[in-house]
Amino acid sequence: MDFAFDARTEELRGQLLEFMDSHIYPAEPVFEEQLAERENPWSPPPVVDELKAEARKRGLWNLFLPGEHGAGLTNLQYAPLAEITGRSPHLAPAALNCAAPDTGNMEVLAQFGTEAQRKQWLQPLLDGEIRSAFAMTEPDVASSDARNIATSIRRDGDSYVITGRKWYITGAMNPNCAIFIVMGKTDPDAEPHRQQSMILVPRDTPGLTVKRGMKVFGYDDSSHGGHAEVVFDEVRVPAENLLVEEGAGFAIAQARLGPGRIHHCMRSIGIAERAIEAMCRRTLSRSTFGKPIAEQGVVQDWIAESRVRIEQLRLLVLKTAWLMDTIGNRGAHTEIQAIKIATPRTVEWILDKAIQAHGAGGLSQDFPLAEMWAGIRTLRFADGPDEVHKRSLAHRELRKYK
Amino acid sequence: MDFAFDARTEELRGQLLEFMDSHIYPAEPVFEEQLAERENPWSPPPVVDELKAEARKRGLWNLFLPGEHGAGLTNLQYAPLAEITGRSPHLAPAALNCAAPDTGNMEVLAQFGTEAQRKQWLQPLLDGEIRSAFAMTEPDVASSDARNIATSIRRDGDSYVITGRKWYITGAMNPNCAIFIVMGKTDPDAEPHRQQSMILVPRDTPGLTVKRGMKVFGYDDSSHGGHAEVVFDEVRVPAENLLVEEGAGFAIAQARLGPGRIHHCMRSIGIAERAIEAMCRRTLSRSTFGKPIAEQGVVQDWIAESRVRIEQLRLLVLKTAWLMDTIGNRGAHTEIQAIKIATPRTVEWILDKAIQAHGAGGLSQDFPLAEMWAGIRTLRFADGPDEVHKRSLAHRELRKYK
Amino acid sequence: MDFAFDARTEELRGQLLEFMDSHIYPAEPVFEEQLAERENPWSPPPVVDELKAEARKRGLWNLFLPGEHGAGLTNLQYAPLAEITGRSPHLAPAALNCAAPDTGNMEVLAQFGTEAQRKQWLQPLLDGEIRSAFAMTEPDVASSDARNIATSIRRDGDSYVITGRKWYITGAMNPNCAIFIVMGKTDPDAEPHRQQSMILVPRDTPGLTVKRGMKVFGYDDSSHGGHAEVVFDEVRVPAENLLVEEGAGFAIAQARLGPGRIHHCMRSIGIAERAIEAMCRRTLSRSTFGKPIAEQGVVQDWIAESRVRIEQLRLLVLKTAWLMDTIGNRGAHTEIQAIKIATPRTVEWILDKAIQAHGAGGLSQDFPLAEMWAGIRTLRFADGPDEVHKRSLAHRELRKYK
Amino acid sequence: MDFAFDARTEELRGQLLEFMDSHIYPAEPVFEEQLAERENPWSPPPVVDELKAEARKRGLWNLFLPGEHGAGLTNLQYAPLAEITGRSPHLAPAALNCAAPDTGNMEVLAQFGTEAQRKQWLQPLLDGEIRSAFAMTEPDVASSDARNIATSIRRDGDSYVITGRKWYITGAMNPNCAIFIVMGKTDPDAEPHRQQSMILVPRDTPGLTVKRGMKVFGYDDSSHGGHAEVVFDEVRVPAENLLVEEGAGFAIAQARLGPGRIHHCMRSIGIAERAIEAMCRRTLSRSTFGKPIAEQGVVQDWIAESRVRIEQLRLLVLKTAWLMDTIGNRGAHTEIQAIKIATPRTVEWILDKAIQAHGAGGLSQDFPLAEMWAGIRTLRFADGPDEVHKRSLAHRELRKYK
Repeated sequence: MDFAFDARTEELRGQLLEFMDSHIYPAEPVFEEQLAERENPWSPPPVVDELKAEARKRGLWNLFLPGEHGAGLTNLQYAPLAEITGRSPHLAPAALNCAAPDTGNMEVLAQFGTEAQRKQWLQPLLDGEIRSAFAMTEPDVASSDARNIATSIRRDGDSYVITGRKWYITGAMNPNCAIFIVMGKTDPDAEPHRQQSMILVPRDTPGLTVKRGMKVFGYDDSSHGGHAEVVFDEVRVPAENLLVEEGAGFAIAQARLGPGRIHHCMRSIGIAERAIEAMCRRTLSRSTFGKPIAEQGVVQDWIAESRVRIEQLRLLVLKTAWLMDTIGNRGAHTEIQAIKIATPRTVEWILDKAIQAHGAGGLSQDFPLAEMWAGIRTLRFADGPDEVHKRSLAHRELRKYK
Repeated sequence: MDFAFDARTEELRGQLLEFMDSHIYPAEPVFEEQLAERENPWSPPPVVDELKAEARKRGLWNLFLPGEHGAGLTNLQYAPLAEITGRSPHLAPAALNCAAPDTGNMEVLAQFGTEAQRKQWLQPLLDGEIRSAFAMTEPDVASSDARNIATSIRRDGDSYVITGRKWYITGAMNPNCAIFIVMGKTDPDAEPHRQQSMILVPRDTPGLTVKRGMKVFGYDDSSHGGHAEVVFDEVRVPAENLLVEEGAGFAIAQARLGPGRIHHCMRSIGIAERAIEAMCRRTLSRSTFGKPIAEQGVVQDWIAESRVRIEQLRLLVLKTAWLMDTIGNRGAHTEIQAIKIATPRTVEWILDKAIQAHGAGGLSQDFPLAEMWAGIRTLRFADGPDEVHKRSLAHRELRKYK
Repeated sequence: MDFAFDARTEELRGQLLEFMDSHIYPAEPVFEEQLAERENPWSPPPVVDELKAEARKRGLWNLFLPGEHGAGLTNLQYAPLAEITGRSPHLAPAALNCAAPDTGNMEVLAQFGTEAQRKQWLQPLLDGEIRSAFAMTEPDVASSDARNIATSIRRDGDSYVITGRKWYITGAMNPNCAIFIVMGKTDPDAEPHRQQSMILVPRDTPGLTVKRGMKVFGYDDSSHGGHAEVVFDEVRVPAENLLVEEGAGFAIAQARLGPGRIHHCMRSIGIAERAIEAMCRRTLSRSTFGKPIAEQGVVQDWIAESRVRIEQLRLLVLKTAWLMDTIGNRGAHTEIQAIKIATPRTVEWILDKAIQAHGAGGLSQDFPLAEMWAGIRTLRFADGPDEVHKRSLAHRELRKYK
Repeated sequence: MDFAFDARTEELRGQLLEFMDSHIYPAEPVFEEQLAERENPWSPPPVVDELKAEARKRGLWNLFLPGEHGAGLTNLQYAPLAEITGRSPHLAPAALNCAAPDTGNMEVLAQFGTEAQRKQWLQPLLDGEIRSAFAMTEPDVASSDARNIATSIRRDGDSYVITGRKWYITGAMNPNCAIFIVMGKTDPDAEPHRQQSMILVPRDTPGLTVKRGMKVFGYDDSSHGGHAEVVFDEVRVPAENLLVEEGAGFAIAQARLGPGRIHHCMRSIGIAERAIEAMCRRTLSRSTFGKPIAEQGVVQDWIAESRVRIEQLRLLVLKTAWLMDTIGNRGAHTEIQAIKIATPRTVEWILDKAIQAHGAGGLSQDFPLAEMWAGIRTLRFADGPDEVHKRSLAHRELRKYK
């Protein structure tokens, strides 16, 4: 047992921290300014492209992707890098071409795509030329139960025809989002986990309408492509757009989850660290009743709690990454669920206290805390509500004693 | 001891419930539509004025205001009515001319204003013709300690000259907001609670700039006047605009708090009740894993907890109203602080669960829950953070044993 | 709506508070001494009988019992008196002949007993001459589901024959405990809530063995009769010992619950108030790092929280008492469950903080806090675990929207 | 970074798990029986000595102690073994000669003792022939602030004379406890952390009175030596009994803390694991309302939460052990405090839920859960209350930004 990062990780951490200081943090105010001045309210500001060019030049590119297509890091090597990018969540992941949902989509294409699919869609994604979306959640059903999915993918000759309604399709408002991976049902009568399939749908396919941007606590998240409601009305694509085969949708979705969770969780931990820093700085700099707010016992309690909680959480995420690397996603199932449950609430708690420590400013557009909070809050639903995961985790625990 | 409402309260509750059903709830979708179509992004939709006319016609008007100027209800009589209006928080309080911050401002004018001040500002407020703002919080200091207030109110001949910066001035983005009650310092060298004064500043006074709308999470709250940052740059008003006398600011602020807290808390309870209803309806109507979500044990736990918590909370708010009516605001000090502490977190918890029960929809603009949550979250700061109130409450408890 | 106690209540509160000061608190150290010197380790110390005599002389006797047999108070009038007795939970309730489980048993006999049963058992209980027990919980099944009860009550000629095992039968270790009310099954094939019956079993009936004292976190609670494991091995009693009729057991149990809950909850609130007082006094009297512990922000947070929580809780219990008085136990069903859920956890939380504020002493036999905590902890099971009550409460809430 | 145990650890884990199955678990009922039949109510049952002999024979002996005197394991190697012993907390640590407070005392003697002191006291402790106590906490002051310590250690010729009162001196009721390490003040006028000294006091020294056993909730913990109140009345010992030098007491106390925390925390995690197992087994084996309790959503939530929390906690304790091994106790200061804060509350929460899942049995002497709970509850005070540690941890966090 060894809690030190390996040499490769330390080297990349050093490079990334340097890049954060020299390029990312200075770009944050520029990003905010450009956001306010955009013509298309859903376009990412141009500074993002500049950062991407610089990051690629420095070799800080596609770090998330194992294997030949990416940087070839293990999950455990990438995890601490993901944490660092989380400190500037709207800029750093995008700059390194490591932003969701592209990461998960690239993994799917790398792992399950045909050579043609990889050439057409994976390559431009790896090059940061296009963006992508993953269309799973539906407004009309409780999507945490995959059997509820109502979108149909119907075979018709050499085509599949897709009909249904999706929402909270992250990134899809970005005009540069060129490809959708869509989950739907090819066979409602198959056994529960063989009913679903996934299919590639180019954005400009007739019948696909990106209808509106869904909000998250008032935020439209337009800086990173928003969350679209998308209508599929008899959308016809070639049969070869199907991923793997009919009925493989659920299995692909499961495979996509593991690494995505690690990324999300580590970035969230980076957010928490930035919030702790902000809480300390703010409470040291303001006084009430004759002393800095940082000297109030309750505020110190928040700070200590934040540290105690985040240290525990980080280790569990890292161990999960290690398990995935050593025994695979299946073997790490319990831990993958555990970090999905533990992360959002821990980080949400820390952000709540950091907001409270900032007074009204904590709610405002002048600090990133409220927006970070809203982003983290969504994770308690993402990939199914925590409650569903807890039930499943308990079943596995109980099975030991049956 | 008697837990039944009196006859007058029951009568008004009946009338108000009827008005909610016949006018307020049906107006909610209209309101949303008109919001989307406004020319001035800070103007309240026209349906509000229609509702005001109807409410006034029905005698459901200025119910919050005791004494000759208002409906003459006690705090205890008004409280359950405020709760009902909370069920539609963007429409009902405004329709009844019972919306913050006008309510507190009207109370201040009724209680502390000269006849001239009342004629000029109280009357049009009572008639629902203008709106008003209360300018206390400052961006540059921790405003929960009144001694930190930095805005200066300097006597200069027959005028006072005001210089300073305020933010989160609720309602001030509304073009119809005509008058500001401004808190500032007339004498920084006086004893701590005699340094501050309050003064009336008409919106169109030179030097007063309404600079921008502050956000609450991602919401600008433009439907009810937003929360402005306001700059006072050598703003000159006649000396008779001062309320009461120099040094009275802190005392007026304290007097303003009590009834405002009751109103806020009861409206919040109305919000919680609507959230519980929404949580029940949603979880009854959707199924996962073969049964309605409402049959999941954890969801039932949320529902039961919500009921158990809200019942306790409501009684404490009502008792506080009763104490204010019988022994006065001073005597009810502990309870007024207690409800300030207990209400936001209880209602926030319930809203969080209702959101979770709605899945992604709970975060969205399609349901009112996320916006309600953001509104309630602000109450943990409003009138000073909960932590300051807890400290003060503990001091009073400890004093019993010294 | 009126939050003031009525004149009768105020008068009795005054008398009781005086009795607490003059007799109960001074008897506490005597009680502890006598406990250490007892010959029979399950006998109550003699000071209890002295206090009973004094209380009876003062008319502070059987206050819990409405109607002709008792003091004739309403639930709402008795509740604040029960709270006061809770401040000295091992002495005051017993002194006033208002201690569980006798109170519930007397209510059952008064309401459901025949004249003969009342003469034989109710009268000596009302006179404080004997004690009684209520035998419901069984070690071998989850007793929160009444259908699980395994003890059989079999008709055999003019007798009933009882066989089964019960535990946590409070008070039964007291040699003065003369009568058991036993819940068992007369007809396992009847509909779920008509299978059970209740029957009176004198302690000295052959076949009844009081086997051992069960512990509660190491406490045997011998000062008030302990909690016995009791074996019924073909115990034969006359048929007229049955209460009401075969199949009435569940209904009697339900009827017994309401007032008992009020008593338990109000006494618990008295315990909480004493804990808050102890927490304040202790932290004012000891210093660390240069100032009294009471000036630590976190300790003040505990004190404020305790006040905020207990005020809400008390009002809900009082309202429940009022509902029982005005619309009956059935109408107060939701509130009776709500106070069962809310009370133990609130008081437990306060006791935990009071213990923490006392350092190691808080755990010890030198302060009453740890023992109080253990007593309160049991309430999260008493009459079924909180979780069962929450489920039931949620069902009632959901039914509104079905 | 590597989350697998090394080969030596795995080997010892295997041996220890085998010993638990073959000897420790089977001895548990024997231990309970012998406890009930002891003549001296403070003597450990004879089965403990049998287990010690067997463990020593197997080389499972003094595993806690690094260096030449002990088994030579690192903290990281010992930690997972300590966890396993925690599953039977009254038997396994004692059997392996790894029970507190002997472990800490042996560490002190090994690290700070003279050769003579080691020969006289360390050797028989290493051989498991005597037990020892550590006398720090005092009833009359808040001992979490070392400056408050009131016991005096006065030089008088070739002797030191000790006068003071201590309580909660764990193990001291055991007649086999032969030696006390006593903390007192040699110089109240020195700087705060140089006022204290530690001195060795044999149990039979005149003037030392072991006065009574303190309780923890209702437990006297007589099976492992109880917690004594000890009076030192002009107790005279040779000057060479002083450890290191005058003024070294605080530093020795600090050095003693680190490894002790690891041991305590890991044993606590073992307790939690046993509680989770008990919760699963119990709820699988009992039914209410037609299905096993384990199928209730709320119970599954408890099980899942327990798993999620304990996994995070264990990793933090292991990392702390690793830090102590690699950068020393000083460098691991933040983490040592973090595990002190995180462990008791996490394990207490899990035990509380396991108790609740057991119904009344959970409180009783028939299951180990309530006693385990009481033991864990004390850890929130041990070595100072959590609140003191949080404050200190927050100061260190804040210092980064000053």
